[in-house]
Amino acid sequence: MKYADNKITDLNIAYIGGGSRGWAWTFMTDLSMEPALGGTIRLYDIDQEAAKHNEIIGNRLSARPEAVGKWNYEVSSSLKDALTGVDFVVISILPGTFDEMQSDVHLPERHGIYQSVGDTAGPGGLIRALRTIPMFVEIAEAVKEYAPEAWVINYTNPMTLCVKTLYHVFPEIKAFGCCHEVFGTQKVLKGIVEQEMGLEDVDRAEILVNVLGINHFTWFDSASYKGIDLFPVYEKFIDGHFEEGYEEADRNWMNSSFNCANRVKFDLFKKYGLIAAAGDRHLAEFMPGNTYLRDPETVSSWKFGLTTVDYRKKDLQKRLDKSARLVSGEEEVEMKPSGEEGILLIKALCGLTRVVSNVNIPNTDRQITNMPECAVVETNAVFSRDSIKPIVAGEIPDQVLTLVAPHVQNHELILKAALDCNYDLAFEAFMNDPLVRGRITEEEGHALLKDMIRNTLAYLPKKWAELV
Amino acid sequence: MKYADNKITDLNIAYIGGGSRGWAWTFMTDLSMEPALGGTIRLYDIDQEAAKHNEIIGNRLSARPEAVGKWNYEVSSSLKDALTGVDFVVISILPGTFDEMQSDVHLPERHGIYQSVGDTAGPGGLIRALRTIPMFVEIAEAVKEYAPEAWVINYTNPMTLCVKTLYHVFPEIKAFGCCHEVFGTQKVLKGIVEQEMGLEDVDRAEILVNVLGINHFTWFDSASYKGIDLFPVYEKFIDGHFEEGYEEADRNWMNSSFNCANRVKFDLFKKYGLIAAAGDRHLAEFMPGNTYLRDPETVSSWKFGLTTVDYRKKDLQKRLDKSARLVSGEEEVEMKPSGEEGILLIKALCGLTRVVSNVNIPNTDRQITNMPECAVVETNAVFSRDSIKPIVAGEIPDQVLTLVAPHVQNHELILKAALDCNYDLAFEAFMNDPLVRGRITEEEGHALLKDMIRNTLAYLPKKWAELV
Amino acid sequence: MKYADNKITDLNIAYIGGGSRGWAWTFMTDLSMEPALGGTIRLYDIDQEAAKHNEIIGNRLSARPEAVGKWNYEVSSSLKDALTGVDFVVISILPGTFDEMQSDVHLPERHGIYQSVGDTAGPGGLIRALRTIPMFVEIAEAVKEYAPEAWVINYTNPMTLCVKTLYHVFPEIKAFGCCHEVFGTQKVLKGIVEQEMGLEDVDRAEILVNVLGINHFTWFDSASYKGIDLFPVYEKFIDGHFEEGYEEADRNWMNSSFNCANRVKFDLFKKYGLIAAAGDRHLAEFMPGNTYLRDPETVSSWKFGLTTVDYRKKDLQKRLDKSARLVSGEEEVEMKPSGEEGILLIKALCGLTRVVSNVNIPNTDRQITNMPECAVVETNAVFSRDSIKPIVAGEIPDQVLTLVAPHVQNHELILKAALDCNYDLAFEAFMNDPLVRGRITEEEGHALLKDMIRNTLAYLPKKWAELV
Amino acid sequence: MKYADNKITDLNIAYIGGGSRGWAWTFMTDLSMEPALGGTIRLYDIDQEAAKHNEIIGNRLSARPEAVGKWNYEVSSSLKDALTGVDFVVISILPGTFDEMQSDVHLPERHGIYQSVGDTAGPGGLIRALRTIPMFVEIAEAVKEYAPEAWVINYTNPMTLCVKTLYHVFPEIKAFGCCHEVFGTQKVLKGIVEQEMGLEDVDRAEILVNVLGINHFTWFDSASYKGIDLFPVYEKFIDGHFEEGYEEADRNWMNSSFNCANRVKFDLFKKYGLIAAAGDRHLAEFMPGNTYLRDPETVSSWKFGLTTVDYRKKDLQKRLDKSARLVSGEEEVEMKPSGEEGILLIKALCGLTRVVSNVNIPNTDRQITNMPECAVVETNAVFSRDSIKPIVAGEIPDQVLTLVAPHVQNHELILKAALDCNYDLAFEAFMNDPLVRGRITEEEGHALLKDMIRNTLAYLPKKWAELV
Repeated sequence: MKYADNKITDLNIAYIGGGSRGWAWTFMTDLSMEPALGGTIRLYDIDQEAAKHNEIIGNRLSARPEAVGKWNYEVSSSLKDALTGVDFVVISILPGTFDEMQSDVHLPERHGIYQSVGDTAGPGGLIRALRTIPMFVEIAEAVKEYAPEAWVINYTNPMTLCVKTLYHVFPEIKAFGCCHEVFGTQKVLKGIVEQEMGLEDVDRAEILVNVLGINHFTWFDSASYKGIDLFPVYEKFIDGHFEEGYEEADRNWMNSSFNCANRVKFDLFKKYGLIAAAGDRHLAEFMPGNTYLRDPETVSSWKFGLTTVDYRKKDLQKRLDKSARLVSGEEEVEMKPSGEEGILLIKALCGLTRVVSNVNIPNTDRQITNMPECAVVETNAVFSRDSIKPIVAGEIPDQVLTLVAPHVQNHELILKAALDCNYDLAFEAFMNDPLVRGRITEEEGHALLKDMIRNTLAYLPKKWAELV
Repeated sequence: MKYADNKITDLNIAYIGGGSRGWAWTFMTDLSMEPALGGTIRLYDIDQEAAKHNEIIGNRLSARPEAVGKWNYEVSSSLKDALTGVDFVVISILPGTFDEMQSDVHLPERHGIYQSVGDTAGPGGLIRALRTIPMFVEIAEAVKEYAPEAWVINYTNPMTLCVKTLYHVFPEIKAFGCCHEVFGTQKVLKGIVEQEMGLEDVDRAEILVNVLGINHFTWFDSASYKGIDLFPVYEKFIDGHFEEGYEEADRNWMNSSFNCANRVKFDLFKKYGLIAAAGDRHLAEFMPGNTYLRDPETVSSWKFGLTTVDYRKKDLQKRLDKSARLVSGEEEVEMKPSGEEGILLIKALCGLTRVVSNVNIPNTDRQITNMPECAVVETNAVFSRDSIKPIVAGEIPDQVLTLVAPHVQNHELILKAALDCNYDLAFEAFMNDPLVRGRITEEEGHALLKDMIRNTLAYLPKKWAELV
Repeated sequence: MKYADNKITDLNIAYIGGGSRGWAWTFMTDLSMEPALGGTIRLYDIDQEAAKHNEIIGNRLSARPEAVGKWNYEVSSSLKDALTGVDFVVISILPGTFDEMQSDVHLPERHGIYQSVGDTAGPGGLIRALRTIPMFVEIAEAVKEYAPEAWVINYTNPMTLCVKTLYHVFPEIKAFGCCHEVFGTQKVLKGIVEQEMGLEDVDRAEILVNVLGINHFTWFDSASYKGIDLFPVYEKFIDGHFEEGYEEADRNWMNSSFNCANRVKFDLFKKYGLIAAAGDRHLAEFMPGNTYLRDPETVSSWKFGLTTVDYRKKDLQKRLDKSARLVSGEEEVEMKPSGEEGILLIKALCGLTRVVSNVNIPNTDRQITNMPECAVVETNAVFSRDSIKPIVAGEIPDQVLTLVAPHVQNHELILKAALDCNYDLAFEAFMNDPLVRGRITEEEGHALLKDMIRNTLAYLPKKWAELV
Repeated sequence: MKYADNKITDLNIAYIGGGSRGWAWTFMTDLSMEPALGGTIRLYDIDQEAAKHNEIIGNRLSARPEAVGKWNYEVSSSLKDALTGVDFVVISILPGTFDEMQSDVHLPERHGIYQSVGDTAGPGGLIRALRTIPMFVEIAEAVKEYAPEAWVINYTNPMTLCVKTLYHVFPEIKAFGCCHEVFGTQKVLKGIVEQEMGLEDVDRAEILVNVLGINHFTWFDSASYKGIDLFPVYEKFIDGHFEEGYEEADRNWMNSSFNCANRVKFDLFKKYGLIAAAGDRHLAEFMPGNTYLRDPETVSSWKFGLTTVDYRKKDLQKRLDKSARLVSGEEEVEMKPSGEEGILLIKALCGLTRVVSNVNIPNTDRQITNMPECAVVETNAVFSRDSIKPIVAGEIPDQVLTLVAPHVQNHELILKAALDCNYDLAFEAFMNDPLVRGRITEEEGHALLKDMIRNTLAYLPKKWAELV
């Protein structure tokens, strides 16, 4: 990397995935608005056409005069080509198609098991992990061979298991996972503090929080804004608005059609005294199955949405249509900051700044002091030149640990199940998932798990076919 | 203590409890048959008459010529009198009466939650803990004040929480918990190895095992007899006898009416590859509620008994009748070794021998390397003069850890709930118990827990009355 | 605390000590230049006249129109008065007088043991600790009673043992130690990077470093400036300037007469590959006695100074003279930023900002992963509202750990020696100190240690008189 | 292995080394007297003639009618042949000749550095380690390839570094180190307890001790015999016999000419309150160089011997002469139990018994709770079928830890120095050794270390020749 005038102009970044378009465009847009960085983006996707389209869209964007960050987009034809010699690797893949996801999310409904997202925890998260982990094994091996010194940024779900796989295969990997759910919760706090204290233009990034937990089931045990402790403010707001909840006026495209009144978050605060730091649709999936996701009526009373896969299919079609228009030049990418911190982290790792942000990495340094070292956790860390140093986040309170623990155990079981094609371990994890446990018998469990695995066999190692 | 001729004749032991007779007599009998020890037993029970009767029975036994261990039994009128200056304290109390236990065991059946014992885990174990912990707080404080150097041996259930309370109140206490379930499992192995290999008179104590887990949910990850690895022997036996199980011909009085064909144990071995080391009635209660204890038919198919409290009441009456006969001299205590190791451990702590035995103590030394230090665990330890040193037991495999973990979390929650009279923590633990979780709603949970607490209010700190 | 307009105007700070003037004025000056803070400073010193003078000087300073931070200075007549209700406590005391220090520093010269500072490690540091620890016991007990929620900032040496004592007496204390030696080393790097790369006006605070070690024997294992890795820059500089070293043109008053060409630092880099982050006079005292401090000629060849206590006495007299002039109004305090970060940290702890800085606190969170939890270590931490979270610093390399370890052991021994007035432990530490070990016999050691203790008896608990 | 009638008759043991005869004969003799074991011993030594002679001696011994353990001795011509398929590996090699040892022990005397043994710590121990470690790398790799499941018993010095090397190269190795120094100290206690209490025929093995430390610098923090606490007994004896010490009447051949009155041991007890558990000649070498080994007069006043290498050479010649007589049949091996526990441990690992004994293994399970996991430590452990489980030994007191710590650090440094042929690390360790530190300058240190390395170049990897 060449530094001059506080700027780097020859960065090489491999972007793996992006076929589903959304994240790729966000990333491109943020890059185009960052003056301190420039270089080459190598696009690699198993859907070569998607990569080709992104190449056109990226170069078109970069050519616009208002784009202060200049990048050259190139399609790579193999992981080897994409990775060799890069400084950063971004992973944002969709494991399987929405047809597989249809089964993940909706098949368990036959036993009354509802899922609001189905990509992280629950039966759906498990199956998605089974098909994602082998892909991440392949990526980790390629990084080890072709780009062992590169920083690897993962955006793919299930986040925790993706990161865990990378470190399992290549323990020296410099990988971390980024997720915007914490930012979303900071925005909720921003809205509440503005409303409660009559403030204006509170900057989300100035809401300082201590983050601890696992991805999509993350918690704040402190939060402040310019010397104001936000816990009493939050509590007071909940006291006054528990029934209606809090809905953001201004939401970004990621969440626009995903209903969330933060009532689950409020209820968790009343029960446990911490601020849960993810969208309600995610949070609900980590809790026992007979609480927020008991049945559609219960979900409705908690005012959050069950995102159907039909919706996702329609939404994808919209993005594909938009892609066609962007490729043809009929439409232009809107240059608006995404609010994501990915580019900021890249700058910090290049040494241009020092940044505190939340991150998903193994708990090797016991940043969460009462979780095992092997767990992948989400906490704050300090990013600086070629370095991520976790900030000690402290202990998760016992009651919350009780909620988090079965998921951490499941990550261990699921990783091994996926690596070894071990049905017994997968079943153990399946029955141990809080959405499932106690709600179906072992016989029902075997039947459901086997059906779900069968529906995704196309994306699994062959050995699974013999096991189900 | 005076040592002479490899013998100690002036030991002072406080025996707390014993009103329910059984354990007290076992202990007395074992003492009377041990030539190397003698001294005074101070009997303390809130039921003074029971203590008085045991005094008569004990002294009568000690006076018999065939009693080689000579002991003087005396009733103490207070904990202070019982404890001051003693070398050992034995705790064997019954917290509450069988009326309270009636509610503990049977009330949850209204939601289909069955319990085979109800004194350790499950809803019954939780309620029993709530009334036991305050008693152990009182005992621990008395030990701290009157006998801080004494060794404290606990036989009371729920074992783990009793030991945990003792250490919480007085961290320097020299306390440990003894339980015979491991011996019972060694006896099963003895029977199987005799049957499979045509051996005779295998000594239970020569079945060498590595013990790891928590009381009543303990596991062996190795077992051998004179160089023979017992794992393949056990596996072969299960292959041939899975349906009928294994029933001991010779069972001691403790288990005589408690049905157990070890089929749960066999099933756990098939699933997890370890030998579960407790009676099936205990093991079943630690597993998810829809497995072995799903309903009475399921229980029956696994061939173990649901011990009703009606049975216990009748059994107690028999012991009280026997007590009357023993006091009157109409009947004599039978001098037969119990198979318990309590006396052996006392000898070792006096320095007369060095013994390896299983014991329940805090995991402070990480004897189980992947469990938290605060957990009370059951592993082997070396007993020698004034010293218990845990033997490192190693790791519990992930799958089994998944089963053990919610109980360890619950111990933490229940201890705090009991110490602080905190309903929320009790409820969290209640819903987290594998027999309960996923099987009833939060509303049902609140109603059941409150009803169960109300039924035991007579034995709880007053503050609970306001909470339910 | 009242926050309004991003400002706090009612802070209460207790300042313990300050009789030696220098640090007190630095602190006052920095406060007067910080617009976001204001309130009351309570001055407490056993030298009441010194406190009274500082009160006059402080209030005079605060009254000047260019002082944007407004503070009211008040003398407190007792620790209780000083502490009750404060938000912060600053400790900057001189334990004993320069007469005691005369013995600390110079008596060991009779055996050829030279000390360049004598306030942290070595025989002098040990004796100073013996008289300082009882004072810190008293302060910690007072904080526990009168200001348990206050943040306590220590500037007194021996830093590590002062902080260790505070936490030993009151484990819940919110205390930390601040030291500017790291900043001094950042300034050396700033000078070198300017010289080597032709840069101008590099900001010391933008030299980003990872800090690990113990106070005055601290190390950087990474250092960068705007994306530039400073390790190769530093190495190249040393290659070209090892003989002459590097001397700063611009030095602040603290070091002005203390010679330091950074040659010890350069030599340590050549030997161990890390940047030692304290002045050479401090570093040399932590190394074996026959290296940099072997004799005055050796010291001279390494181009650092042995600060005599005669010099210190003269320097103090100058400050006392200046104090008289400041009190009389004949002279004014110069309002120039000190470069210290104390005020910045107070702002952060008030929630007005989030800051990364180096700090001395116990290694409870294993911020240095291969040092014991009980050690007090220096690493970076994140300061934010009512919170210090250590940043994981990683491992100290084996060779450096070998150098650090005897000091960490000595801290443990000296703390206990001082708390219990235990001569044996003090002697063990004395002979274990690298400046001493192997250089004198046990007999010589006993004689020297006893003489040194005798010379400071006026400041020790009475019991010591019987021991020497 | 075939078990029948509580006996194993087909064991395969590889014996690596043995050229120096003594240990090999002890081992053979013990085997011949153990009725429960039999099989084949494969002898491998780089001195093939020595192996051939031992084959003859072994088979001759086994043929004697009073030999109840029957073994077939065979020479193996390669490590591969020796190891393939064996159950146990015994390592007892002499790294280098006595000419190399001459330099190890005596060269440092030019700077007044005396060594009483020179094979474990001190300059001699370091050099011996440099030549031993590469041999153990070779053995460990061979075990990994040819006998990965075998138990490996090491008797070679420097014990700690030999064991550390085995685990470094092959982390799954089942290796441990055996040493009789602990037994020797038990014998001292036996003698003292007999003398002080008028007892007779106290069995050394009934002296129960808690062992903690590193090989040859091991400590007891408790010791008892049949309920008698031996600490006050030991203290009383020392009070009465400090000046003359304690000399054993009955000593085995290993120590016969090695003077030891246990005065060092007594002095360490007075200073630190623990019983040091090795011969004084070993203990003295771990202490700072100006204490017990200051000069020959000091050594003499402490009443222990400096074992010269001339003595060793003569002693070896005697053994070689004896070997010739044993081979020719002129003389017979004397069948007398050695008092070693090696054979007992083999029986236990075969499952024939369960034994508690002291052992040198990595501190992976934190058996010594305040030493690092990477250290190889000596503590008690339980040996049973295919299993060694350490018994938690607890904490080493701070003062003693201060003495042990530099050696543990040196093990880390020396291992790396030897593996990587790194002179800087070797020098760091050399100057950090308590016999050396503070007593010679860096210049003297470089000259001495280089001379010592040069004298042993014939047994080092070639790269060292370039470094010195």
